[in-house]
Amino acid sequence: MASSFKIHFFGTSSAVPTKERGLSCLAIIHESSISFFDCGEGSQRAVINAGLGFNKDCNIFITHMHGDHVVGLLGILQTMAMNRREKPVKVFGPRGIVEFIRENQAILKFGLTFDILAKEVKSGLVFDEKNSKFRVHATRSEHSTLSFSYLFEEKEKPGRFHPDRAQKLGIPEGPLWSKLQHGENVALPGSRKKISPDQVLDESRPGKRIGVSGDTRPSESLEKFFKNTDVLIFDSTYSDKNKENAIENMHSTSREAALLARKARVRQLILTHFSARYRSVSHLVKEAREEFPNTIAARDMMVYDLSTLS
Amino acid sequence: MASSFKIHFFGTSSAVPTKERGLSCLAIIHESSISFFDCGEGSQRAVINAGLGFNKDCNIFITHMHGDHVVGLLGILQTMAMNRREKPVKVFGPRGIVEFIRENQAILKFGLTFDILAKEVKSGLVFDEKNSKFRVHATRSEHSTLSFSYLFEEKEKPGRFHPDRAQKLGIPEGPLWSKLQHGENVALPGSRKKISPDQVLDESRPGKRIGVSGDTRPSESLEKFFKNTDVLIFDSTYSDKNKENAIENMHSTSREAALLARKARVRQLILTHFSARYRSVSHLVKEAREEFPNTIAARDMMVYDLSTLS
Repeated sequence: MASSFKIHFFGTSSAVPTKERGLSCLAIIHESSISFFDCGEGSQRAVINAGLGFNKDCNIFITHMHGDHVVGLLGILQTMAMNRREKPVKVFGPRGIVEFIRENQAILKFGLTFDILAKEVKSGLVFDEKNSKFRVHATRSEHSTLSFSYLFEEKEKPGRFHPDRAQKLGIPEGPLWSKLQHGENVALPGSRKKISPDQVLDESRPGKRIGVSGDTRPSESLEKFFKNTDVLIFDSTYSDKNKENAIENMHSTSREAALLARKARVRQLILTHFSARYRSVSHLVKEAREEFPNTIAARDMMVYDLSTLS
Repeated sequence: MASSFKIHFFGTSSAVPTKERGLSCLAIIHESSISFFDCGEGSQRAVINAGLGFNKDCNIFITHMHGDHVVGLLGILQTMAMNRREKPVKVFGPRGIVEFIRENQAILKFGLTFDILAKEVKSGLVFDEKNSKFRVHATRSEHSTLSFSYLFEEKEKPGRFHPDRAQKLGIPEGPLWSKLQHGENVALPGSRKKISPDQVLDESRPGKRIGVSGDTRPSESLEKFFKNTDVLIFDSTYSDKNKENAIENMHSTSREAALLARKARVRQLILTHFSARYRSVSHLVKEAREEFPNTIAARDMMVYDLSTLS
């Protein structure tokens, strides 16, 4: 499958930006859709720098209502309006998200060209549409304000199509192949014989799952929520040395992130949300890898291609 | 005088950021104070990149309540709080500024460590304090929403001090020199003879004046407001070719900015707030210089040193 499935990291600093790292923002591009997870100040410029544009099907998931995770939403919405977007944008977040958009829309008078459908989330399934190829779930995380972690779950995909089998069955290449690939039965032309998809397709394949922790302490509940995710993006604000800060400010150390990743049996851990005090985060990665080797650090403008996880 | 008097350009794009230009923000550093004029998204990161810090005496002047001019205020205030700032910050802007800060402070719950004194401005003197070395005036500009232009006016400075004259008069170097330099009469030690400042100082010198247009059409009222300013920073969103857009969107072309600068007899024109459609603004500068040769284009992170204007 050559279709696009990528994670773009737009901002990987915590609380305050640095020269190298902007405020929290990442986006999952899945085929023609973009799903943002947090939109700290500077997000729209990072999206522009990445050459992504603002006209995709768009859903925005906010983990919590701290300024460094949500202020950039205003610029994204305003720029979408400047670009005369017409498709609606759905925004999900904790209590406060609806008021934040409504109040700023009223005060800043941005003339919108599209609908914003904003919704306050609870733990559970927060996004699932018939035509969408993914679902998003939420669960409470443990931070200093009401906060959620999210799980992006690609829906089950049809199995690999075998053209040789289709040809052998006498099905002409064209629309009938496409129907079978999409899981529909077809009738052979000039015959009443039915062909079912399982005659030409391998078994359907489970979709990939991406976890986004937002700001949080590690917890058993999150370990369960993120069980077996393919990619887990986790709060790694501090190193071992600053574990007390992690506890006090309700964040995680990179080692704590890695311990959780190991217990949850994730495939790939990506550390993010680094304290601005660290010029280099190589020691945070080192500490994490002692617990869970398959760990990397996010950096601004990094793109992680899910197709590399076969 | 070696004391600092500089204009830092932090964001010079209009409406949407580009790779090269962030959203509207500039700051005038005058000795130990910083005065921001507009704070578009991304301002705090530009301030960090410039190595300026967030603990100076700080006043913030907002020209109008469009998101691209004011959203970055939230990050600046939040980061000041993260840095445990204690000195108050004064914020001036049109109707809406007080509500914008109050609502976002409530929704985003940023725990402030300092007072924000926010005030809605009218045309006239908006900032003047006994101990400050400058004043700021405002006047209505002509844009699609209630908007103000500002004039930063350095107060009159004492004339040059002549040590040779002081020595000849028998005044010992030290505190008495300092008093004279600050405009106070002093008595000669062991004598009742009074020495007045004008015996050792040249005539006082007028302060420098900097005009900041914000978003606006040119107008006679602004020409009057900016009369004889040393530096005029003016809306130059468009080139001649897009003059219709300038009229429709209530901005100025670079040529219009230059015509106003010529009529107002300013010394230096700095163009800013360029439409994101221009990769290069050299043709905007060329068109402006046909009317007013002493024109330059602002770019992000440019620093204009007022001491170069003798």
